[in-house]
Amino acid sequence: MIKIAVLGYGTIGSGVVEALDINKEVIKEHAGQDIEVKYVLDLRDFPGTPIESKLVHDYDVIVNDPEVDIVVEVMGGTHPAYEYAKAALEAGKSVATSNKALVAEYGPELIALAREKNLNFLFEASVGGGIPIIRPILRSLNVDTIHHITGILNGTTNYILTKMFEEGSTYEEALKDAQALGYAEADPTADVDGFDAARKIAILSSLIYGKTVNFQEITTEGIRNITDVDMKYAKALGKKIKLLGITYNIDGKIYSEVAPHMIDKKHMMYMVDDVMNGIETHGNLLGDTMFYGAGAGKLPTASAVVSDIIDEVKHLHVNIPIKWDAEPMVLEDHTKHWSKFFVRVDAECEEMKTCFKLEQLTKLDDYPDEYAIVTEELTFEEFYSKIEGNSHIRSIIQVK
Amino acid sequence: MIKIAVLGYGTIGSGVVEALDINKEVIKEHAGQDIEVKYVLDLRDFPGTPIESKLVHDYDVIVNDPEVDIVVEVMGGTHPAYEYAKAALEAGKSVATSNKALVAEYGPELIALAREKNLNFLFEASVGGGIPIIRPILRSLNVDTIHHITGILNGTTNYILTKMFEEGSTYEEALKDAQALGYAEADPTADVDGFDAARKIAILSSLIYGKTVNFQEITTEGIRNITDVDMKYAKALGKKIKLLGITYNIDGKIYSEVAPHMIDKKHMMYMVDDVMNGIETHGNLLGDTMFYGAGAGKLPTASAVVSDIIDEVKHLHVNIPIKWDAEPMVLEDHTKHWSKFFVRVDAECEEMKTCFKLEQLTKLDDYPDEYAIVTEELTFEEFYSKIEGNSHIRSIIQVK
Repeated sequence: MIKIAVLGYGTIGSGVVEALDINKEVIKEHAGQDIEVKYVLDLRDFPGTPIESKLVHDYDVIVNDPEVDIVVEVMGGTHPAYEYAKAALEAGKSVATSNKALVAEYGPELIALAREKNLNFLFEASVGGGIPIIRPILRSLNVDTIHHITGILNGTTNYILTKMFEEGSTYEEALKDAQALGYAEADPTADVDGFDAARKIAILSSLIYGKTVNFQEITTEGIRNITDVDMKYAKALGKKIKLLGITYNIDGKIYSEVAPHMIDKKHMMYMVDDVMNGIETHGNLLGDTMFYGAGAGKLPTASAVVSDIIDEVKHLHVNIPIKWDAEPMVLEDHTKHWSKFFVRVDAECEEMKTCFKLEQLTKLDDYPDEYAIVTEELTFEEFYSKIEGNSHIRSIIQVK
Repeated sequence: MIKIAVLGYGTIGSGVVEALDINKEVIKEHAGQDIEVKYVLDLRDFPGTPIESKLVHDYDVIVNDPEVDIVVEVMGGTHPAYEYAKAALEAGKSVATSNKALVAEYGPELIALAREKNLNFLFEASVGGGIPIIRPILRSLNVDTIHHITGILNGTTNYILTKMFEEGSTYEEALKDAQALGYAEADPTADVDGFDAARKIAILSSLIYGKTVNFQEITTEGIRNITDVDMKYAKALGKKIKLLGITYNIDGKIYSEVAPHMIDKKHMMYMVDDVMNGIETHGNLLGDTMFYGAGAGKLPTASAVVSDIIDEVKHLHVNIPIKWDAEPMVLEDHTKHWSKFFVRVDAECEEMKTCFKLEQLTKLDDYPDEYAIVTEELTFEEFYSKIEGNSHIRSIIQVK
């Protein structure tokens, strides 16, 4: 029997407790023993619920209890999550977390501390919710040189974009709808401005390349400026608009960005709708691979957390190696990278038809005062120098 | 430095040697040491090639060499692959294999032997080629009760069906084309009759449920009877035809089948074309997950084999637990399971329009002497009793 403590009884914390209960037998079979939640740390009381008797408000009770072997950090945020995770490891307890903010900021330090103490710091649920992606990257894709990793990593923005595509909603309407359903927070900044996706692509890239990709250095653009009109063009072009996090490895030079992209219907990523996530990698041996599943949600995320708990039960005081050094990964200047661009302009602006090698020129009947083009592939630098000073441009979106 | 032997220098064997060479640095970083191919076993000589000096024709040289820690079995077939794998384990060497026939038939015995000897018998490449699927099932999806696992598991038939869909080819033309490209063998039985897919779904199901699913007990139907006319109806219905291997867990009762299915374009599996494979699972916590990638091919398959070699290097004389007991999994009578059915019939046969609750009725202009229906969901038993004795039926295909 292994005793664990769960820090935070919010959506994911209660999901972990529930998952351990619902799938008790399956989990026991794989872990080799029973797993008991001894403590739940939360500021609130939950009178009359089954976890009432396990609730503590003081973290010291947990960290000082030698019976607790594993601490499950699902509070979110970096403080006190970081201090709690560190104290757990220092006290000889492994840590499993779903907290991407913690992992993106303190991952290498906590991984190193776990290694030093012969413990584990695992974080499968921090990217892609329930999708198994951290473990496949570490244990399966480690044979390959990964040329790019591309992800739809944020369920909230994907829900908003899907709603806009399918129902013709404006961005504001779709956001309000996502908030009403609990998919978006009252202050949606972290999601809609791409910061959440940036943290996640930073984590995946750091694991692939073994050095720390700082999420703050990733060129990041969110979806606030995507309009229902952009979406109508996307539809006419046989494409959807998705927020992608991408890291490219071009002959050892690493470029990373988060930005909305138009994706053609021939790509698998076109199919990733609503709150689902998808992660695609291209390896030099393996070619294209894709992982798809629930990017958020109580039980899917809990499932990933519990897979870490099982691994930690099976590796008590045996470190599972994770290569992610504190050494910073130098990101190349993103303006030197390239893309195709979708550009919407005022109808009177003739020059846009001639200054690119056009892949496509589209006019929609409903919008006679404008048209849109898709350019050839060119660097951001070249692209922006060509449109410099042009005041007729209504929107610009990268095209896959 | 770890020394390994590769049994068989065919497509996959030469791929493994090549992969170890191309990605030497990446692999060394993850394995923690250099991996050297000391021997290659093949009946042939390869004069003038770099592996000439490593070639042996006598397996005893390998099995008796204490320097060899890992034997890579990529010969295919069950004999002598089984005897060789067993001898390697008995001599204290771990085994990595891509051989689904070996795994489907002798998996539990070799897994048990490896466990007994504190060694490893790993087989990531035996299903889904390069797609990481065995490890995710064992290490990530083990938290869930899996309600179904569905796979496009055979690249050859998927190529043939894609060709028929995209180019309107007949089955015979598409098969000939697959043979010319080396995707199908001169005797294509194992692929086109579904036996290869049956072995693969048997392996996945055995790993999920922990008991042995005998591939010979799986209800298996191949693609020989799929015609270009069927494919035209599929297209008209917004569907494609794919060969699926599926295992359902309905309240603990296990049903397993391999059969062609019409798949609607709203499903991810609709996008899995050519020689690519896709594997979808539905867990009680996780919901839907999908894994997609190259189901065959020299380097993708080699990548999966090398991921096993790395795991074995990191776990020399430490068994990585795999739960797959020899105890047979009892499969339920498949006629008690259910599906929707696509049925093509002679135009004169009016009764087909009334004996089902029709979901769809389709007529194609090019085929005035027939029509097609899609039925409601009903058991195979019910369906076949309703059409018993009807001599007007031209084809029947399950519908997803």
